Amino acid sequence: MDSVRIREAKEGDCGNILRLIRELAEYEKFSNQVKISEEGPCVVAYGIYYFSYSTWKGRNVYLEDIYVKPEYRGQGIGSKIIKKVAEVALDKGCSQFRLAVLNWNKRAMDLYKALGAQDLTEAEGWHSFCFEGEAMRELAGK
Amino acid sequence: MDSVRIREAKEGDCGNILRLIRELAEYEKFSNQVKISEEGPCVVAYGIYYFSYSTWKGRNVYLEDIYVKPEYRGQGIGSKIIKKVAEVALDKGCSQFRLAVLNWNKRAMDLYKALGAQDLTEAEGWHSFCFEGEAMRELAGK
Repeated sequence: MDSVRIREAKEGDCGNILRLIRELAEYEKFSNQVKISEEGPCVVAYGIYYFSYSTWKGRNVYLEDIYVKPEYRGQGIGSKIIKKVAEVALDKGCSQFRLAVLNWNKRAMDLYKALGAQDLTEAEGWHSFCFEGEAMRELAGK
Repeated sequence: MDSVRIREAKEGDCGNILRLIRELAEYEKFSNQVKISEEGPCVVAYGIYYFSYSTWKGRNVYLEDIYVKPEYRGQGIGSKIIKKVAEVALDKGCSQFRLAVLNWNKRAMDLYKALGAQDLTEAEGWHSFCFEGEAMRELAGK
């Protein structure tokens, strides 16, 4: 599908991207965590990334979300977004490109591995921990 | 140990913190990834955190590293650092406090759970993936 163009988001894309974020939340079974009412046409996929800093590895990029509408899957659009992020990250001097995936999402895990990513949870035993809400307030003594 | 004071790092702490980073790298079996030659006295623990942004959860804080010199463990210094980060994070409007740990580090995992953290890898199946070096350059077509 040569006609898909991967580009930076513009302000006018917000409504469409929010709609896709809601779709992703439903797909990942966390739809109760997202409340969106906006509607709009056209954007078929998105990736959200940010830059962070690791003590040992220096600057790196984290792909927070990536989503392709179900009817547009299998056309390499996800790979194109990932490649674009890698390109931007290298230009910015990043030495690592990180992302997280749910273990039941075999399709995504297989794609990331095929593209050359290492599963750090599997290979080195990294576990992600999180404090939220009441646990966080209690921790802070507030 | 009431005499331990948890404070923000100052520029003069750099040498000491770098020395601890090397100790942590040895403890986590990644010492080959850290090259440091500086020396200095006194700082016995550190935590490094940064703020990031999650699509669904908004602003959050990530504890990149936490380390307590072996001879100072078992005195609650690690907990004090974690509590301090939670306090700063709440003040900054964060809704999540994330961190990662290696699964053989049972002492740390038990501590985080005791403090109220959820193991997202265990509970929801999140795996951390990473592209580095050649894999990243190939991905970007560079």
